[in-house]
Amino acid sequence: MPKTIVGVMGPGESATATDLMLAEELGRLIALEGWVLLTGGRSAGVMDAALRGASRSGGLTIGISPFSDWHGLSQHVDLAILTGLGEARNAVNVLTSRVVFVCGMNAGTASEVALAIKSERPVILIKPPSETLAFFRALSPDVAVADTCERAIEIARERLKPARRG
Amino acid sequence: MPKTIVGVMGPGESATATDLMLAEELGRLIALEGWVLLTGGRSAGVMDAALRGASRSGGLTIGISPFSDWHGLSQHVDLAILTGLGEARNAVNVLTSRVVFVCGMNAGTASEVALAIKSERPVILIKPPSETLAFFRALSPDVAVADTCERAIEIARERLKPARRG
Amino acid sequence: MPKTIVGVMGPGESATATDLMLAEELGRLIALEGWVLLTGGRSAGVMDAALRGASRSGGLTIGISPFSDWHGLSQHVDLAILTGLGEARNAVNVLTSRVVFVCGMNAGTASEVALAIKSERPVILIKPPSETLAFFRALSPDVAVADTCERAIEIARERLKPARRG
Amino acid sequence: MPKTIVGVMGPGESATATDLMLAEELGRLIALEGWVLLTGGRSAGVMDAALRGASRSGGLTIGISPFSDWHGLSQHVDLAILTGLGEARNAVNVLTSRVVFVCGMNAGTASEVALAIKSERPVILIKPPSETLAFFRALSPDVAVADTCERAIEIARERLKPARRG
Repeated sequence: MPKTIVGVMGPGESATATDLMLAEELGRLIALEGWVLLTGGRSAGVMDAALRGASRSGGLTIGISPFSDWHGLSQHVDLAILTGLGEARNAVNVLTSRVVFVCGMNAGTASEVALAIKSERPVILIKPPSETLAFFRALSPDVAVADTCERAIEIARERLKPARRG
Repeated sequence: MPKTIVGVMGPGESATATDLMLAEELGRLIALEGWVLLTGGRSAGVMDAALRGASRSGGLTIGISPFSDWHGLSQHVDLAILTGLGEARNAVNVLTSRVVFVCGMNAGTASEVALAIKSERPVILIKPPSETLAFFRALSPDVAVADTCERAIEIARERLKPARRG
Repeated sequence: MPKTIVGVMGPGESATATDLMLAEELGRLIALEGWVLLTGGRSAGVMDAALRGASRSGGLTIGISPFSDWHGLSQHVDLAILTGLGEARNAVNVLTSRVVFVCGMNAGTASEVALAIKSERPVILIKPPSETLAFFRALSPDVAVADTCERAIEIARERLKPARRG
Repeated sequence: MPKTIVGVMGPGESATATDLMLAEELGRLIALEGWVLLTGGRSAGVMDAALRGASRSGGLTIGISPFSDWHGLSQHVDLAILTGLGEARNAVNVLTSRVVFVCGMNAGTASEVALAIKSERPVILIKPPSETLAFFRALSPDVAVADTCERAIEIARERLKPARRG
């Protein structure tokens, strides 16, 4: 029985202070649920903050790197999956995640949300800007939104239920 | 000196009649410019319509398939690139395109627009819905918009100029 | 500090009884070293045997699947990385592995050994057929060979030393 | 009806003078058959020589680059497919080729031959070293061998026949 892997996606260098705070808290809560945290693995922004939150709370963490070597990895990655695929690794991030949490938005993150919808992985946007919510809801009415990390975790628990039976 | 390859992205099975009409016209105009048309290659929606338009006007066409064999390919593909990569092939579509034209919108198309912005490929949205335009403009002010295929081609000519020098 | 991930590569359905016995023993010894085992993740042949060996000895296991969903996975995979990349996932298997152990040989396995040499990952062939050894030694004199799983583990320990410093 | 694309694989920087001579001649003969030539696209070794041979004889050429931009491309590439996939692009090279010709051998080339066998693409080795021939024949008895480029083309014509019907 494989462990439950969930993804946290968000900007790297361009993350805001709020994005980082939410990501770290989300990482912490994910670890407390006993889920494995997956991110894009780089030592930057939402990836690094979420990994730090999970790692400090004793959670197991996976980083799916776009690179073919160990450079640029967050020090909070337990398991570094080196793809060498560049941006095409975003598809791997999303397919591997049973649920995709989103803190903040930029072009790379947008590609992951879009691929998650395409691949029928549940998406939970945390405090999204209005144009982000409007766009992704137009793509799929199933996209969820949460105002707090606690609420995001509750939604994820719900979304994971049918897959557990499956 | 490599030929100029430009991409046309848009929905497959869920394309609207307007999407299809625009895509076929765009394919025709791309062929008349002497550009090579690239699409996702499947025999459906915007991909098939654009390929048909280009092919009937004597243009060369490339289809980048998500599959590892020749099934499901549009009959208007001259050069079938079989990737076997699934949705990760969207990254190849975008990197290979000097300009990305967009007709219509769904989750797969959204991932391509986002990856194009991330990879600094010029994006031209043709008659986009308002929430599409608002979202991608928030990601990048450089995203262009056109009300007609003729105008989209003009913008593409402009955007290609600096790269020709490069 | 990421955990040490090592790969075991070998045939799926066409594995021999000897391949399977070696793979299971290797999985067991890898778990005892405290290394994380990576394989192609399918419920077949060397992949499944190595995963079973590691899992039963309390080791952590990763399966890098060619598919985009959970079908066909070995039940001994703890962490399922779903790539949807088809055979292109072999590049990910190899890049992610600090050392590549090889039990048995077929075309898929050969591609992984070749990619490992190309990517400068240490390769250890266990009881290889003579033409396998001759071919890969001609590609790289650094390819190691072992007659037993214990010896393969010893060689891996040696090869991992410089990277630990790096 | 898509054009017939055939691949020529072989070493880059480490190609021998014989490899280069054979590759250029093969490129020339491929163009004369009216086939489209595919290589890894880099301005080095067998890739560059085959592309030059085809291009000078009026053939159409495709280069499947491991990179995400236009650097390092052979000037004889007509159509540059930029994958950004690193070595994982070798899987694309092979899937896209209806026949895979091989001049010379190194680790990257070996991965392509192995993936071609796995994907059931016909492989034709031209003047292979004895250990190369022994190894790949052990993987698949269908691997063909040719002493001249002319003979390689004849074998390719034969192998292409059933697929044309398919």
